[in-house]
Amino acid sequence: MPELRKDPVIGRWVIISTERGKRPHDFRPTPEPQKSGFCPFCPGNEDKTPPEIFAIREPGTAPNTPGWTLRVVPNKYPALRVEGDLNRRGEGIYDVMNGVGAHEVIIETPHHDKKLADLDISQIHNILKVYRDRITDLRNDVRLKYVLVFKNQGFEAGASLQHSHSQLIATPILPKTVIEEMNGALNYYKYKERCIFCDIVREEIKDQVRLVYEEEHFIAIEPFAPRFPFETWILPKNHASHYEHSSDELLRHLAITLKLVLQKLEKALQNPPYNFIIHTSPMQDGPLQHYHWHVEIMPKLTRVAGFERGTGFYINSTSPEDAARYLKTIEIA
Amino acid sequence: MPELRKDPVIGRWVIISTERGKRPHDFRPTPEPQKSGFCPFCPGNEDKTPPEIFAIREPGTAPNTPGWTLRVVPNKYPALRVEGDLNRRGEGIYDVMNGVGAHEVIIETPHHDKKLADLDISQIHNILKVYRDRITDLRNDVRLKYVLVFKNQGFEAGASLQHSHSQLIATPILPKTVIEEMNGALNYYKYKERCIFCDIVREEIKDQVRLVYEEEHFIAIEPFAPRFPFETWILPKNHASHYEHSSDELLRHLAITLKLVLQKLEKALQNPPYNFIIHTSPMQDGPLQHYHWHVEIMPKLTRVAGFERGTGFYINSTSPEDAARYLKTIEIA
Repeated sequence: MPELRKDPVIGRWVIISTERGKRPHDFRPTPEPQKSGFCPFCPGNEDKTPPEIFAIREPGTAPNTPGWTLRVVPNKYPALRVEGDLNRRGEGIYDVMNGVGAHEVIIETPHHDKKLADLDISQIHNILKVYRDRITDLRNDVRLKYVLVFKNQGFEAGASLQHSHSQLIATPILPKTVIEEMNGALNYYKYKERCIFCDIVREEIKDQVRLVYEEEHFIAIEPFAPRFPFETWILPKNHASHYEHSSDELLRHLAITLKLVLQKLEKALQNPPYNFIIHTSPMQDGPLQHYHWHVEIMPKLTRVAGFERGTGFYINSTSPEDAARYLKTIEIA
Repeated sequence: MPELRKDPVIGRWVIISTERGKRPHDFRPTPEPQKSGFCPFCPGNEDKTPPEIFAIREPGTAPNTPGWTLRVVPNKYPALRVEGDLNRRGEGIYDVMNGVGAHEVIIETPHHDKKLADLDISQIHNILKVYRDRITDLRNDVRLKYVLVFKNQGFEAGASLQHSHSQLIATPILPKTVIEEMNGALNYYKYKERCIFCDIVREEIKDQVRLVYEEEHFIAIEPFAPRFPFETWILPKNHASHYEHSSDELLRHLAITLKLVLQKLEKALQNPPYNFIIHTSPMQDGPLQHYHWHVEIMPKLTRVAGFERGTGFYINSTSPEDAARYLKTIEIA
């Protein structure tokens, strides 16, 4: 019998329909299309991106030259631009405003062929600290309401360049899904006077059936109502509403957890394309009791079709309990 | 300068960012993977599907044998099943219910290689009438709150079988996106005392810039805030809240319009994968003043990535005005 499960935060229903189920090795990713040689993110091609906003580089090397291990640059084809006014206006019966915001690219490594999961923990730690520092910097622009940090790994997950990178987009309005998630968490808090994510952390540690990994500061779980097979969330055990308030030490633990989880997913699913997204509170808000930042990782193993688009329901052929059991057996050297 | 546009009904913001823009011929669909020979939807293989619910067949031919031109069968791997009780219950802090509903497949033609757009208008008319009649029948089951009729054309759009078919899924709760769309339309109605879709029809006929096609009873437009390049909507000109209240004559006009629009999209975009979805009112409701059924067609030319998932914003590199201008030039013999 298929089962309908409700995401406790956002209220999204998911159909867990294991009869159409696949085993992990049935999710064979489409081969990555081979792109031709030139890569604007490789050392030596620094002039092919807009000038860098930040870099970690060897002492004595000049900006926008080789010698870096991590580089942040504006997106060359930005979805939103820093310049200009919002200029909200009507157009006939419709509403429109200018695309003010920011769109930056974090080039995670100088090595063209290394994936995020292949990097040293110290380098992943650097990347996570840069996310934090860029959010903190962009918060100074009061036109900006939210920063989404995300990564598209692999062509099927939307990456247009192979060289490992993540992105951030700062938006001048609170995105719809962020509002929904914040409201869902707030409703729970009003009713229970507890953070729903803190309750999820406790429940999953107690239940164990969806727990993939636990360390001192983080857990990784398959969520109760996952949209996608092997959707995996990483949550800090202690309550914190804003990613950008994280200490270096906390982010070191996140680096350890993220690397391990990505390695498990890559081994279990043969290097799947994936998206990861940092879910955090609106940056102009102070600390919040009801929201708890976390990371959502979504392997791209299936194709979203008409039903999902038309309803917002997702059909998932792999239960999170099965996925967690499988991921736990994956040994990482 | 990128532009942010708001969908007037659902309140979804879309970034129209034509600088990263592609021309229509740049959207080259990935080749369809070639599937091996056996097709459960072809004549002669009727026993490979569950027994038919309805068929249009030559007089004298028996159910579940060849001789049909259109066939409706339960999905062999249903996302939701007709049997059983909903049995809403808690599971720890979570909510779950049984997957009660219906999941049917409309096999649109006995010809394996014909696409929907290739069929005669009379056959498309039959398909549209069958959608109506299946909704009307399922309405008798009061456990069911909504029927979504949709089509996934092509592998990239989620079709797992090549043989042309559409699907309907009846759900025991109102889907989230349906609630959002109904609420958006109701809010407009409360404020203006007019149907927002009637206003859109008037605005687009007056403006012409996003109008792709107009006939006696329908218009086809590129919507003001499209999520995807070449997203196309077909709306009846006269107000009607429920698809299933449509007369045979109205559906004949829809067949003409749908065929023409699909032919234009297929010619313009080299047979793109696409989804179409019938947006209609909850079937247990009586006629509504504030909602107006319509069809949304979404060519699958781009990949939804982390940003869209994390925000509900979409980034679209083709403005609807450019898309409409181009589609208008496409001549159909």
